[in-house]
Amino acid sequence: MAVVVPFEKVNASIDTMVRATKADMERVNAMILSRTGSEVTMIPEVANHLISSGGKRLRPMLTLATAALSGYRGDGHIRLAAAVEFMHTATLLHDDVVDESDMRRGKPAARMVWGNEASVLVGDFLLGQAFKMMVEVGSLRALDILSTAAAVIAEGEVMQLAAAKNTATTEDEYLAVISGKTAELFAAACEVGPVIAERPKAEQAAARAYGMNLGIAFQLVDDALDYGGKAQKLGKNVGDDFREGKITLPVVLAFRRGPEEERAFWKRTLVEGQIAEGDLDTAIGLMTKHGALADTVERARHYGDKANDALALFPDGTMKHALMEAVAFCIARAH
Amino acid sequence: MAVVVPFEKVNASIDTMVRATKADMERVNAMILSRTGSEVTMIPEVANHLISSGGKRLRPMLTLATAALSGYRGDGHIRLAAAVEFMHTATLLHDDVVDESDMRRGKPAARMVWGNEASVLVGDFLLGQAFKMMVEVGSLRALDILSTAAAVIAEGEVMQLAAAKNTATTEDEYLAVISGKTAELFAAACEVGPVIAERPKAEQAAARAYGMNLGIAFQLVDDALDYGGKAQKLGKNVGDDFREGKITLPVVLAFRRGPEEERAFWKRTLVEGQIAEGDLDTAIGLMTKHGALADTVERARHYGDKANDALALFPDGTMKHALMEAVAFCIARAH
Repeated sequence: MAVVVPFEKVNASIDTMVRATKADMERVNAMILSRTGSEVTMIPEVANHLISSGGKRLRPMLTLATAALSGYRGDGHIRLAAAVEFMHTATLLHDDVVDESDMRRGKPAARMVWGNEASVLVGDFLLGQAFKMMVEVGSLRALDILSTAAAVIAEGEVMQLAAAKNTATTEDEYLAVISGKTAELFAAACEVGPVIAERPKAEQAAARAYGMNLGIAFQLVDDALDYGGKAQKLGKNVGDDFREGKITLPVVLAFRRGPEEERAFWKRTLVEGQIAEGDLDTAIGLMTKHGALADTVERARHYGDKANDALALFPDGTMKHALMEAVAFCIARAH
Repeated sequence: MAVVVPFEKVNASIDTMVRATKADMERVNAMILSRTGSEVTMIPEVANHLISSGGKRLRPMLTLATAALSGYRGDGHIRLAAAVEFMHTATLLHDDVVDESDMRRGKPAARMVWGNEASVLVGDFLLGQAFKMMVEVGSLRALDILSTAAAVIAEGEVMQLAAAKNTATTEDEYLAVISGKTAELFAAACEVGPVIAERPKAEQAAARAYGMNLGIAFQLVDDALDYGGKAQKLGKNVGDDFREGKITLPVVLAFRRGPEEERAFWKRTLVEGQIAEGDLDTAIGLMTKHGALADTVERARHYGDKANDALALFPDGTMKHALMEAVAFCIARAH
């Protein structure tokens, strides 16, 4: 932990963070397993289908990392990290119902195996368990941050629902959506670290800013990946957003930059849902022509830089370096 | 408030409770209105469609009543009552998606107007807001009670889902389902009253027991009403549970008391979902023949008595009387 790594050498990898949080993460995983337990056997079945499906657990790892960065000496970070992962899992279960998705992380979505009903209700159960764990930690400030995040995430998702059929969505409106639905949980997961360590407000705000900007970068790269790149390697279906008529940044940019006949294409496919064979290839072709995918990744890089700058007031060390590598990792997924 | 009403005269009415909590309830309603607010206009639209549709707001009223019964002098009960109503509303929004219901309180269900997506996500938003309000009150014990309730409610609903196709469900298994999905919120709503008033554990447990037994009685009467009675007057559709294949106590009793050919009828209609013209009338006929509806109401009366007995250690007075009248009211709905 005491080794200071020179900053010029920032790998695009979460390996350092994985190693540095390994012992704590094992406790988080045990906590997750015990808290999905229920005599109602369908609950652990549905929950573990998703939880054990090989997600990176980036969000709880961020809570552990920012707690360590803040010199926290206690047990609360384990429960908070598990609560963050439960909130994330509940969101995924509900999202699959909302988006009518068939696949998640390269496996059939829970709703395809157990039905929409079970996905909605097990999501609710996990949210309840998440709050129970937070209450056990006893930090009202951490509770405030995470319960606010729960409301803001749902608000962001509703905003996306309302924007789904609007190709005239602006870049700022789109940023408001992903700040809510994705980045808010990254921000909250990072903020609670210095909060339970009772560090000064400035450090809490810095950790929050790191998480918020990392979350935006993460979502932007995800949106670009949905139109190609290494999506399949990551267990995603290329073209999901296109088929669901989601207005993401690559669409926003391509729509604005293209002439009227291209806009008619976007309206037919995304707004009216009239998608024919070859339309996905056409969409990717238009995005490439207008540099929409490259520029989406460029925007991600901008938010990644902001995330790294937010870390400036923390002391150099392994954990700070690991957090910077995580930024580089999120962006490098695009290549 | 100081008038002691003789106990022999217990009306089957919630009028006394409505009057005694009127001033506080106006503050709760204002809180509810302000907390459904969002720049994302779909959120207040969906939330208020349901919230303003003329529910009795029995659950938040119980929080106000038990807080008053406990001599609470503060503001926390307003936010906790609003949080309880939000938890209830979130459950209804999600239930309508799970049950694929068309109607709710005599109006089209929110999912019929705004879609399943909006119902799931606005439910999540309201849950998040509920927790925010609880955090603002700052009582970790109240937070513990209500977050536990959130997990237990979802668990009860999943249990019901798993039992939905099992006509061999026992009365005890059925009681476990409704204790979770319905009575737990009544119990939590009542328990937080003495908790924020910092009354002794015995009074907290008594208020919880009152709520739990009232909730069971309430659900039993609801289940009986689904097969007739004054259901239409209450804005319900007779036969919803039958069409959805729900195994409720009237079914449990009729199934056990009937011969093999009747059991074949229940399996065809509820398990296989093969429902023909006239089957609902046949079901009601079988239940009547076996006294299943009358006995369901009789069971409700038993739990109502337990609810009243739980109140014994509180001082006599208007609020205690109002709580006893609420029990009589819940049971009298069946007639």
